[in-house]
Amino acid sequence: MTAPENRRIVLAERPTGAATASAFRLERAPVPAPAAGEVLIRNLWLSLDPYMRGRMSDAPSYVPPVAVGATMVGGTVARVEASRDPRFRAGDLVVAMGGWQDYAVAAADGVRKLPAGFAHPSYALGVLGMPGFTAYMGLLEIGRPRAGETVVVGAATGAVGSVVGQLAKREGCRVVGIAGGADKCRWAVEGLRFDACVDHRDPAFPEHLAAACPGGIDVYFENVGGAVLRAVLPLLNLHSRVPVCGLIAHYQGEAPVLGADFAPALLRAILVKRITIRGFIVFDFYGPRFEEFVERMSGWLRDGSVTYREDVVDGLERAPEAFVGLLAGRNFGKLVVKIAD
Amino acid sequence: MTAPENRRIVLAERPTGAATASAFRLERAPVPAPAAGEVLIRNLWLSLDPYMRGRMSDAPSYVPPVAVGATMVGGTVARVEASRDPRFRAGDLVVAMGGWQDYAVAAADGVRKLPAGFAHPSYALGVLGMPGFTAYMGLLEIGRPRAGETVVVGAATGAVGSVVGQLAKREGCRVVGIAGGADKCRWAVEGLRFDACVDHRDPAFPEHLAAACPGGIDVYFENVGGAVLRAVLPLLNLHSRVPVCGLIAHYQGEAPVLGADFAPALLRAILVKRITIRGFIVFDFYGPRFEEFVERMSGWLRDGSVTYREDVVDGLERAPEAFVGLLAGRNFGKLVVKIAD
Repeated sequence: MTAPENRRIVLAERPTGAATASAFRLERAPVPAPAAGEVLIRNLWLSLDPYMRGRMSDAPSYVPPVAVGATMVGGTVARVEASRDPRFRAGDLVVAMGGWQDYAVAAADGVRKLPAGFAHPSYALGVLGMPGFTAYMGLLEIGRPRAGETVVVGAATGAVGSVVGQLAKREGCRVVGIAGGADKCRWAVEGLRFDACVDHRDPAFPEHLAAACPGGIDVYFENVGGAVLRAVLPLLNLHSRVPVCGLIAHYQGEAPVLGADFAPALLRAILVKRITIRGFIVFDFYGPRFEEFVERMSGWLRDGSVTYREDVVDGLERAPEAFVGLLAGRNFGKLVVKIAD
Repeated sequence: MTAPENRRIVLAERPTGAATASAFRLERAPVPAPAAGEVLIRNLWLSLDPYMRGRMSDAPSYVPPVAVGATMVGGTVARVEASRDPRFRAGDLVVAMGGWQDYAVAAADGVRKLPAGFAHPSYALGVLGMPGFTAYMGLLEIGRPRAGETVVVGAATGAVGSVVGQLAKREGCRVVGIAGGADKCRWAVEGLRFDACVDHRDPAFPEHLAAACPGGIDVYFENVGGAVLRAVLPLLNLHSRVPVCGLIAHYQGEAPVLGADFAPALLRAILVKRITIRGFIVFDFYGPRFEEFVERMSGWLRDGSVTYREDVVDGLERAPEAFVGLLAGRNFGKLVVKIAD
């Protein structure tokens, strides 16, 4: 029997434009050992999220990029294998920034224990974790929807969008999703109970969106940018709010579709319609509100008022192709990689 | 002796691009007579403001445009000549939307009496009126500057910008103005006591602005758009706020200088730096806050903590050329037209 090894997926090169699997490389290395105040964790589930595309680029951002040759970052649900911190012991399930790899050493201060009996550990990477909390704070604190208003959300069946829409329904809003393809649109209406969902791949998408929003748009939860934002802009109402959570269409170079006339049109709309556009990152909101969120969302999952769908990919080695698919919109639900049992 | 006539300046045609005096026409008409609930007013002072360029265009906006052939709209200080409303009598000084003309009939409900002994009636069109209140609410309610932060304001010596900067100084901020030409920049520093003022006509304007804001920009009060906004964007700090009050550079077609890369850069900055951009129009704020504003601002003018400069043009017939000059930045201080004593 050989000593266990650590498979890890590193950034092989910085992609320009659309990322492909060749941007990544699988390496094998010894399993690291924890120092005092650290834990060794075995990653069980890896979350794949659009923000990771930003970390592959060296454009200035809110955190430094992943270095070429370094392990890709990512949130994981993991099991503690060995602990050199009194707060953890072997067997504990935790949420960590474990990265795209089998094992990781993590500072105990950066690891959060899952409550005993947590029903679906992978949900801590989605509806009960960062994406769910992003949806919760972005919609309720920045979007501030009122009953009767129209809320539009892009990437509607994704980890964030699906929660945004369902929470807006709880607030008494008309909810219109935007998604890629008929299957996702059907799920948004039948599974997530949105009032409508419009396929952004349809050539008549702008007209379909306008038809689905006869009273205009009061809150546009921005996950996408690009051609979707272009179609949304003329529909925004007086005093509408636009929380900017992500711009997935821009991460791979689609942004030029906006055209030279877009910035003036956007600025004019902001002025004339008194629109509020506000970027946010969920890290700004962690603290006491996170516990409140987990408690409320757990209740909504139990009573069925929030539905959650995962897209599970089996095996760490498949993370690169799954991530490339995520950026192209090929996932259907929150994308997670199952690394181990 | 002939009966008095009403000279009025009407919109002769909708300009495309830069407006010229030929967009206007002086007409003569009989003095109108008030009906019940109305007053006849003699305009004494006419305010000229950038928003009027928007009223000359039929692009969708927050109010309908001025019809071709109709009298140009505008705020005035006027004297009541005849009243058919018990709240007013001949001789009262009022603020009204009297328009670009000698006389107007106005609904008594739309007219506000100036307090007896109001020291400078024309100030009710500027520092103690709509532009001053715009600066007050936009800076304090949307910009929300904190002591030690850097506040940048364009059109720095104008009716709004000069008040924004002086109020930001009162809040303990570093204030950097942007203005066109050395004389205005000197006034902003020596007269208005800004910390610095940068000439946007200088080819090295972006570098000069960066040098004047070594700690970045926390609040950018947007009056201008165009190349000024382009230079501001890379300097905006995390969690900065951008009240959008006006876009004078766009009113006449300068907007294309922004370029096709600007909208993606703007959206990315909003996301990564968690910027809040919010359009506003002062009409949204009228109500109890206006009285508070007049009282506080009157005190600041008396004690010298706010300085105010007017650019007075003599004669209604000169309003068109003065307005064309305003859009080109040729005024120096709040532009008002003296129509009569």
